[in-house]
Amino acid sequence: MQVYLAGPDVFLPDALLVGRRKVDICAAHGLTGLYPLDNVIDLSAADASLAIFKANEAMIDAADAIIANLTPFRGAGADPGTVYELGYAAGRRKLCLGYSNDPVDYAGRVRRFSAVTTGESGLIDADGLTVEDFGLSDNLMLIHALDLYGAPLVTPRERPADIWHDFAAFETCVRLAAERLSANRP
Amino acid sequence: MQVYLAGPDVFLPDALLVGRRKVDICAAHGLTGLYPLDNVIDLSAADASLAIFKANEAMIDAADAIIANLTPFRGAGADPGTVYELGYAAGRRKLCLGYSNDPVDYAGRVRRFSAVTTGESGLIDADGLTVEDFGLSDNLMLIHALDLYGAPLVTPRERPADIWHDFAAFETCVRLAAERLSANRP
Repeated sequence: MQVYLAGPDVFLPDALLVGRRKVDICAAHGLTGLYPLDNVIDLSAADASLAIFKANEAMIDAADAIIANLTPFRGAGADPGTVYELGYAAGRRKLCLGYSNDPVDYAGRVRRFSAVTTGESGLIDADGLTVEDFGLSDNLMLIHALDLYGAPLVTPRERPADIWHDFAAFETCVRLAAERLSANRP
Repeated sequence: MQVYLAGPDVFLPDALLVGRRKVDICAAHGLTGLYPLDNVIDLSAADASLAIFKANEAMIDAADAIIANLTPFRGAGADPGTVYELGYAAGRRKLCLGYSNDPVDYAGRVRRFSAVTTGESGLIDADGLTVEDFGLSDNLMLIHALDLYGAPLVTPRERPADIWHDFAAFETCVRLAAERLSANRP
């Protein structure tokens, strides 16, 4: 059974090593991990970004499940590229799992980047925009997609020292994927 | 024909008025706009966020197309909730259109929030993470999804004075949706 490994891990300086580690963890649970950087792309080509898109989409189409790294990336929320892939996988009715290595809720994280005040209709950021405040880890569309199409978001009890190289929450997702996919096997 | 109106517009202080304006623009082009806040949700209920998810998903399922407001939200990139919906719509093979009222490319926007340096493998942000630099407006998954499932991202030549209340790029998307949907009609 194949699992697509979505996440901003591809932007890490040691992205290839992180991918290898994740694929190894999948293998230990009897799953084949599909990591975006395992696609062979000519980055010097004029249409390199389109080639990456098509290769990633083909990997998701071929996968039975997705495990999305929703650890906040460059701001209060998850990486939009990863979130797009989670949405696409949900639309294709794949098993959807995800984790975040930051256990703080969304409203708490927005406070790190913006002065947040309490208005008539709830929390408001410095630009006057409402801050979603349901006590969830991120935007409700992501969080409930996991609830309905897979399993609730996996988060650690405490933020690990290195949020990009701690694989405990990821491995929990792999274990869940292995259980669910083997249960569905004819 | 029905069009789902995705965007962080729902977080604006005048979110209902913005939705009405967008629905009116759709009507002027012969389309029915489906705006998330038109769903009736009991926000005091314990499962309010799940009810919102289900109502939004049902709207996307019922729609022929999505128009996503990908104007940067609370950081350098698009709103993850909106991006999830775009991915889901692409997965359901809906017509996918989108716009951003910020014409700056992604790497340029990351520079507003983080010191960006040039390393061996390209641009790197203050946390040491690679900054995607294909000259696109946002993460390549979003941008090429529009190219392949609808039409290229619509952006204004210059940033409008009020990025949340300028509807020119939105109306271009509505016009495109009306053309494409009527061409597909039997």
